[in-house]
Amino acid sequence: MAKRIVGTTPKEDGYRMPAEFERQTGCWMIWPERNDNWRGGAKPAQEVFANVAKAIARFEKMTVAASPAQYQNARARLPEEIRVVEMVSDDAWIRDCGPTFVIDGKGGLRAVDWEFNAWGGLVDGLYFPWANDDQIARKVCEIEGVDSYRTEGFVLEGGSIHVDGEGTVMTTEMCLLSEGRNPGKSREEIEAMLCSYLGCEKVLWIKDGIDPNETNGHIDDVACFTAPGEAACIWTDDPENPFYREAQEAYKTLSEATDAKGRRLKIHKLCLTKKPCLLEGAATIDAVEGTLPREDGEISIASYMNFLIVNGAVILPQYGDENDALAVSQVQEMFPDREIVGVLTREVAFGGGNIHCITQQQPAPRS
Amino acid sequence: MAKRIVGTTPKEDGYRMPAEFERQTGCWMIWPERNDNWRGGAKPAQEVFANVAKAIARFEKMTVAASPAQYQNARARLPEEIRVVEMVSDDAWIRDCGPTFVIDGKGGLRAVDWEFNAWGGLVDGLYFPWANDDQIARKVCEIEGVDSYRTEGFVLEGGSIHVDGEGTVMTTEMCLLSEGRNPGKSREEIEAMLCSYLGCEKVLWIKDGIDPNETNGHIDDVACFTAPGEAACIWTDDPENPFYREAQEAYKTLSEATDAKGRRLKIHKLCLTKKPCLLEGAATIDAVEGTLPREDGEISIASYMNFLIVNGAVILPQYGDENDALAVSQVQEMFPDREIVGVLTREVAFGGGNIHCITQQQPAPRS
Repeated sequence: MAKRIVGTTPKEDGYRMPAEFERQTGCWMIWPERNDNWRGGAKPAQEVFANVAKAIARFEKMTVAASPAQYQNARARLPEEIRVVEMVSDDAWIRDCGPTFVIDGKGGLRAVDWEFNAWGGLVDGLYFPWANDDQIARKVCEIEGVDSYRTEGFVLEGGSIHVDGEGTVMTTEMCLLSEGRNPGKSREEIEAMLCSYLGCEKVLWIKDGIDPNETNGHIDDVACFTAPGEAACIWTDDPENPFYREAQEAYKTLSEATDAKGRRLKIHKLCLTKKPCLLEGAATIDAVEGTLPREDGEISIASYMNFLIVNGAVILPQYGDENDALAVSQVQEMFPDREIVGVLTREVAFGGGNIHCITQQQPAPRS
Repeated sequence: MAKRIVGTTPKEDGYRMPAEFERQTGCWMIWPERNDNWRGGAKPAQEVFANVAKAIARFEKMTVAASPAQYQNARARLPEEIRVVEMVSDDAWIRDCGPTFVIDGKGGLRAVDWEFNAWGGLVDGLYFPWANDDQIARKVCEIEGVDSYRTEGFVLEGGSIHVDGEGTVMTTEMCLLSEGRNPGKSREEIEAMLCSYLGCEKVLWIKDGIDPNETNGHIDDVACFTAPGEAACIWTDDPENPFYREAQEAYKTLSEATDAKGRRLKIHKLCLTKKPCLLEGAATIDAVEGTLPREDGEISIASYMNFLIVNGAVILPQYGDENDALAVSQVQEMFPDREIVGVLTREVAFGGGNIHCITQQQPAPRS
């Protein structure tokens, strides 16, 4: 049912990754349980993940993958309209380890199963082993009966790319040119891979992301496409903001860029939090030998940009910050026809990401 | 997506279990791995299960559930057209722990999720714990998006019943009236449960099955319906055959029975093996404290009756016995329009069952 496609690429076969704002059939998440990443035995994170899943399930079919140990708990804590399937993982970041779905405009749906190495492998990855995560894409495809392309020898996480569905992909140099992913590959080779597997013609490079020590600067904390010819970018004019330089530079780069269709992009500014989101409750995170203990007061990466677009809505992180309402109104302006659903997700930020990182949309085939 | 239906029964809701010979959309199996049941680290069993899965996959969609530990091995040893999904279990008998699907003739498909206690629980069950097995039906239903009825407090295995799809269910007293399942329930109460959950009006009781020490005499080693008004029954006229008495009695009972529609059943005789199937290689079965070690020469239950009907075919156990060919020809006469596909399954008999025990068909909804 779900075959490995060998010897061709999505582009050669007429497939492209659709933009997130195109029609979806559903969405996937992984249930968090890792006590050495999530504080409080992962219980607060589970509550927030459930809230995110419920928010999405208002708009489309939602599936949550849970390990055998957590299956019954996940099933009990999620409403019945959310499907729960069994799947082991190494943590809960399906944006990065899950499949990138591609469509062909003739009713076809396939997926790219990128090699995954926990954001940098043995160079600067965040955990070892990552073998379960690296099988997530395949297992999702098996359940859905979707054929997949495996990029053996080419490492990529879904959070490091955004596409406009019309030939353009944006990414960051900090991540895609990092030592821990594809060190043997030149910038041109990486561009060729992106274009071949995402069905694109042009790569927009932004220099830096805002979390060099975690994902090596994933694009999905910095910018995204909001419509053909339009993008959103984080923005602050407060030089004291820890992400001031990165935001200014990304905005400048995108403002000067043209997309694959030759359009100058219209850029929407999206605020950052007024105050940094600082880790609390670090003492309840399990200790692991060989890693530095985490401490209260560490900055957690809390970007409003890490939202998820679903059918008819945008699921937007809220942090209990003074700028929460501003972020809602700015995102509403970018997506005038969608409902903006804020979900309080400080807990996900404490774990290293946000709504976009913990979700993976499954686009609708088109014909 | 997959809800629990509470407060009604399938019969009340207009659902019935279709006969196995009705149209199916697919079939499910569980990948074996339990080294204390299967000899040789379960490797010979895995090969034979794969052969059974391949035989079925010629005729309909096939899904195999494998534990995380065996997922990659199962995926590698099964052809790509067979779907592999992750699911922990306590062994590999999805006939008994899986869902019993029911349909309503209006396009509806639901399932009964019987309570499972490993063939007798703490009275005379075959292993402990069985908590993973008891979740299999629910997990299958989740993947398929099928609503289910849970019979909390009522224990039943799928191998202990056969239906004709027209109001009749057959079973054995040895199993359904056993102490290890529903000891508090009268024969009448059990009949009422069967009729309510299978959408039947009449229960045909056969006294004994042929494996009192394993499943307490499941019907699926003894008899089955082959068409409306027709059944097959094991048969031997050799008084030395270890199952002579049971076969004679079952045949007599069925020959004298009428079904829910008042029809006298036409009974097809199905031979037994000429020689008993004796366990070999017992020394390679892992020892478990507290259970008697198994020994070479023990009789394995090897019934030709334990076949599976699929779309256009019957998948029939073969044992390397002198009567293998006779069984094929007898089953061909019962099913003149179906291909009879023999698969050598001594290995499954060594583990305690056969093709019917390790499969669970998913009927096609009708409207």
